[in-house]
Order: sequence, then structure tokens, then C-alpha cells
Amino acid sequence: MQSFRVELKPRSHPVYVGYGLLEQIGELARAEGLSGRAAVVTDSNVGPRYLTRALRALSPLDRVPLVIQVEAGERSKSLDTLARVYDRLLEARFDRHSMIVALGGGVIGDLAGFAAATFLRGVALIQVPTSFLAQVDSCLGGKTGINHPLGKNLIGAFYQPRLITADIALLESLPEREFREGLAEVVKYAAIMDEAMFAQLEQDQAAILRREPTVLEYSVAKCLRHKAAVVEGDEHEDGLRALLNFGHTVGHALEAAAGYGGLLHGEAVAIGMVAEARLSQALAGLDAGEVARLQRWLTGAGLPTEMPADWKSEKFLDALALDKKREAGQVRLVLLRKIGQGVTLSIAPQQLLRHLANP
Amino acid sequence: MQSFRVELKPRSHPVYVGYGLLEQIGELARAEGLSGRAAVVTDSNVGPRYLTRALRALSPLDRVPLVIQVEAGERSKSLDTLARVYDRLLEARFDRHSMIVALGGGVIGDLAGFAAATFLRGVALIQVPTSFLAQVDSCLGGKTGINHPLGKNLIGAFYQPRLITADIALLESLPEREFREGLAEVVKYAAIMDEAMFAQLEQDQAAILRREPTVLEYSVAKCLRHKAAVVEGDEHEDGLRALLNFGHTVGHALEAAAGYGGLLHGEAVAIGMVAEARLSQALAGLDAGEVARLQRWLTGAGLPTEMPADWKSEKFLDALALDKKREAGQVRLVLLRKIGQGVTLSIAPQQLLRHLANP
Repeated sequence: MQSFRVELKPRSHPVYVGYGLLEQIGELARAEGLSGRAAVVTDSNVGPRYLTRALRALSPLDRVPLVIQVEAGERSKSLDTLARVYDRLLEARFDRHSMIVALGGGVIGDLAGFAAATFLRGVALIQVPTSFLAQVDSCLGGKTGINHPLGKNLIGAFYQPRLITADIALLESLPEREFREGLAEVVKYAAIMDEAMFAQLEQDQAAILRREPTVLEYSVAKCLRHKAAVVEGDEHEDGLRALLNFGHTVGHALEAAAGYGGLLHGEAVAIGMVAEARLSQALAGLDAGEVARLQRWLTGAGLPTEMPADWKSEKFLDALALDKKREAGQVRLVLLRKIGQGVTLSIAPQQLLRHLANP
Repeated sequence: MQSFRVELKPRSHPVYVGYGLLEQIGELARAEGLSGRAAVVTDSNVGPRYLTRALRALSPLDRVPLVIQVEAGERSKSLDTLARVYDRLLEARFDRHSMIVALGGGVIGDLAGFAAATFLRGVALIQVPTSFLAQVDSCLGGKTGINHPLGKNLIGAFYQPRLITADIALLESLPEREFREGLAEVVKYAAIMDEAMFAQLEQDQAAILRREPTVLEYSVAKCLRHKAAVVEGDEHEDGLRALLNFGHTVGHALEAAAGYGGLLHGEAVAIGMVAEARLSQALAGLDAGEVARLQRWLTGAGLPTEMPADWKSEKFLDALALDKKREAGQVRLVLLRKIGQGVTLSIAPQQLLRHLANP
């Protein structure tokens, strides 16, 4: 097991990465001084699989935690579902000393996190990420929120958890496609911040794809440590934190154009990273061999790397225009100078489109 | 005009109190470095009266601010109204550099503040309080939120504004009853924190009731400076900030029992302060003469000070049980040792009830 702290002054909190941590969440929460009632927010995929173990693990804190199970899927990141979470908490007379345990992937982390941020103006939040994407990325950093018909994550708050536990054992049973999409975020951290990690990932790719616990623990902890460093330097995403959006400007627009369907998030990001790496070749001096190296790793991980045939849609353009990072009509992009070194750049959407059309 | 800063590290911001400030909100916002588009959230009472002047004042920032006008009244502090605010902001393609101007009383400050806290994970907020209660109390401190059918302010966030402007001129045209309820919060600050201010209020009561601008500016600025000191010491209400609830434990329960109707907030707080002062006499050694002094001032200001005949209801008890400040079955109360010195105490609801029944 590895553990470290995210240092954010009054919002500092520990992160645990290891095998079998789901069984320890109650004890770890108690070690953090938490002692109120617990509500587990989970979804219809994760609940049947892990709820029994989570409730047993929480019993040192709360013998009968409240269970709030929502439908699996992005559609649960809605104001309606959020309202039902509030209703359940209030009907059960939860008070400000209670805690919300987010047991699930990114959707549950975002939804339960936003509920924790806004219930009685904020109650304790424990992130127990069960998907690979959530473990390596979304569980840390305090971004919470829900979607709006006009776009993803448009309503939300920055709200730090009191505790994060990433249980590597949960990755063993993930469907292959879900596991592989997580690898897109893993390699992203290496690409923007850590050339040595990138080389290690190249060396370990086969072991990673076999899901060997030691390499998974290494990868998850490495990503979370990198993310922690970024978030510590820039909690509210004004500067440094923008680097984490490598692959996401194009990726988000692809997802939005597909109406949140078709491509998984990690798959869209994989395509986005290669597109933005090619742009980096044109605009930031990235070596062609480095673009190939990134693409090779992603292809080896079974991830798509080419824009879908029908990408050049009105919807894609609209999505770019609505991107939260746009500023004065410009789209903010993350480019690579080399593997391990990301930089930010603002360009006109039309320029981005030309480069996507003619790589 | 008086001005000072609320010192909250990265969330520090200025407060201006003076005559004619509504005309200067755009310039003051620009002086704070704000430069994006502006949305004015207001209500059907305040909008017709002040919107034209507010829009003119904002023109140095945004020539055509977005106007979002909601129905006047507590019922607009709802998830439905909040959803409509999000819709309007997104339809107008507001980005994260935009700002929300809360032009109104406490309801608008809370609703618009919560929208600002959660739109795109937080945009700039300007508080332009138009009611007396909002000017002396709710505009400062960062409490934002909406109601739930099970209680007031149960959903919300701590979110600091970037700028507060309290225009004393707006108090001139307030209906008498609304003006007088604001005085309950004014005397509350004196009662819990500042004996000299209490003596000054006793001396100035006639001038205050005539709404003389100089005494009003003194009173509003004094309250906001006291509140700023409390909030600086305790942003998230774990300790010191609890003092501000003097009169509010009983007051809130009265309001809730009346179904948010009947009594105005300041009137309920006036009754609550006298009830809690009597309790202070029994439990905290407050002199009977001091209780009489507080009651005399409130009565002189035309505020009610006795529990309504029908207070002993199930609803009142339920409301106490649902109070956000309760802990382990105890109700947290603020008592006075003497005028100018509040202390907190936890007691059983039944004990509180006995004292209310037999003062």
C-alpha cells in the first residue's frame, strides 16, 4: 500500500492506494476523525457488486449506513437525481456531522461529491473510486458537479474530500474496455509531466494489460501523486491545473458531438491526445517520433487514436464554442513540447479545425 | 462612505457602505479587476424599482447585462428557480469570467449567491443588498443556499462575494415594517459583541427610526465590521460564528412553525432574542435589568418580543429537532452573560421548552 497527503491547508487530506482497501474504509475514515452517520451513494452497476463489503467496512462508524443507489450512467449526473439525493438525506435526518461515501466511478464521484459540497453547506466526503478512470484521475482534486442539457459539468463546485481510498483489487473485475479507457488518463500524466514514467509505462505495458497488482499500484499512485502536485499548486484551475486537460479539448468536443454516447471518455481522450500531439508537432516543436511513441502506446493499449469519420459536425463546433476553457473566442489547448512537458496555448477554433483536417 | 476589507486570504474582498453606491457598482467592480459579462439576478419587487439604475451603473462593464428576474418571496429559494437561473446563464453562453450581481434582499443574495457558487464551479459574485436585513447581515459572510420542503437553507454552499456594496439611500423607501425588522439584526450585533454600540443605539433610536443617513451608515457599517471580524475568525461556522445565531434558534423554529409566513424573519429573531435573553438570565447570569434593556429597545423599534399565543406546537418542536445546529440531540443556543458578550451553550430541547413556558 502507498499513502500520501494532498496538501491544501485546511482542506488537506490523505490518499491511500493499495490492494484490499475497500475493507478498510470505515477504519480509515475513523482515523481521520470522522464519526457521524454515513450515506453511501452508488449506482446500479457498482452497488450489487461492492455494497455489501462497503457496508461491512463502514460498520465501525455507522452500523446501518443509508444507501442511495442511482441508475448507472451519465444521465444520473442530473439536477433531478441530485434532488433525490437531498431528499433521501433529509428524510433520514442527516446532520452536518454526517458523511457521504462516493462508491463508484466518475459519475458517482461527481454527483455524490456535489451533494456533499451543497448538503447543509457541506458535509464530509469520502471518495471510494471503483473505476480505473476514477482511481487515477477524477477522485482527486475536488471537482464535483452535474450536467446540464447544454453541456457536461456546467453546474458544480470545487470541494475536497476528507479521504480517498483507491482499491487496486477492484480493477481486477473491470470489463476490458473500461479498464483500457483508464489507461488513456494514465499515459496522459506521463505525457504532460514525467518522461521517466512514460518510459516505465512503455516497459510495463504487457504487465499493465495483464493487470498485475504491483504495476497497477505503481501507476495509480504515480498518477494521483502527479495530480496532487498540480492541484496543490493550483486548486481552482487558473494556471497549472489546465495542463491536465491535455487531450480533453478535442476529447470533450468529440464526446459532446456524440451526445455523450458512442465513445467512452478515455477513448475520446486517447483520440484527443493524438490529435493534440500532432498539433504540438506543428505549433510547439514536438518531434514526430514522440507523436508516434504516444500513438504506439495507446494503440498497444487497444485505444482508438484517429478522429472518427464523421467528426466534422456542427455539433463538434458548437461543443468547442461552449468549452468551459474558451476565452475571448479562443480555445485553450494543452500541447507538448516533448514527452513529459506540457504547455498551454490559446488558438482560434478555426485554426484548430484546420489542423485536425490536415494533420 | 465607509469601506473596509473582509480578510479571508484568497477570498478577501472589499465592502462599501454609503449613500448613492448603487450608481457606482460597475466602477467598483472594475476596480476589483472584474471584466466579464454581468447577469443581474433580482426579484419582482426590487427589479421595477432599481433595475434601470443598476444596469446604467454596470454599463462600464457590460453594456447589455443579462437580467434574471424571479418572483419576490421566499418561494424563489427553490431548486426549480435555481434551475431556471442556470438555464438563462447557459442560454446566454455565460463563461467562467462572467459575474452575477445579486440585486435584492436576503432571498436574492442567497439564491444568486448559490448560483454563482455552482455555475461552472464558481463565478464572481457581487452583493448589492437592497433590504435592511441583507445590508446589515446576510450580504456578508458567504452563506448562500436554497430551501427544501423540509427546511430552510438546507442546500447551499459557503461562497464569498468579490464585492459588497450597501447603499444607504435604498433604505429610505423601504416599507416601515421591513425597515424595522432589520433593526432586530442591528441590535443583535450590539447584544452579542459590543456594549458601547448598544448604548449608542439606545441614544440614537429616534434618529434611526427617522432613517437619518448618518446614523444608518454608522449602524450598517458597524454591523458589517462586526460580522466581518467573526467571519474572519471562523469562516465555516464551527465556533465563533455560532454567536451570530443569538435569537435565531427560537426565531427559526417560530418561522418554520408558521410555515415561513406570518412573522418576518427580523420579527421572529426579536422574539427569539428576548426568549433567549430570559434563558440567559436563568442559565448564564444575565442581569434582569439587561433583559429589560434589550426588550425596551426592541419594543421601541416596534418589534414583537413575546412568543405568539400558539407557539407550543408540534411544528415548533419538529423545527427545533431539524435545526442545523443541533448535535447529539442537543440544541445549540447563544446566551448572553451581559449585553455585549454572547456565549454558546447546548441544552436538551425539553429544557429549552420548559424555560420558554415559564420565563
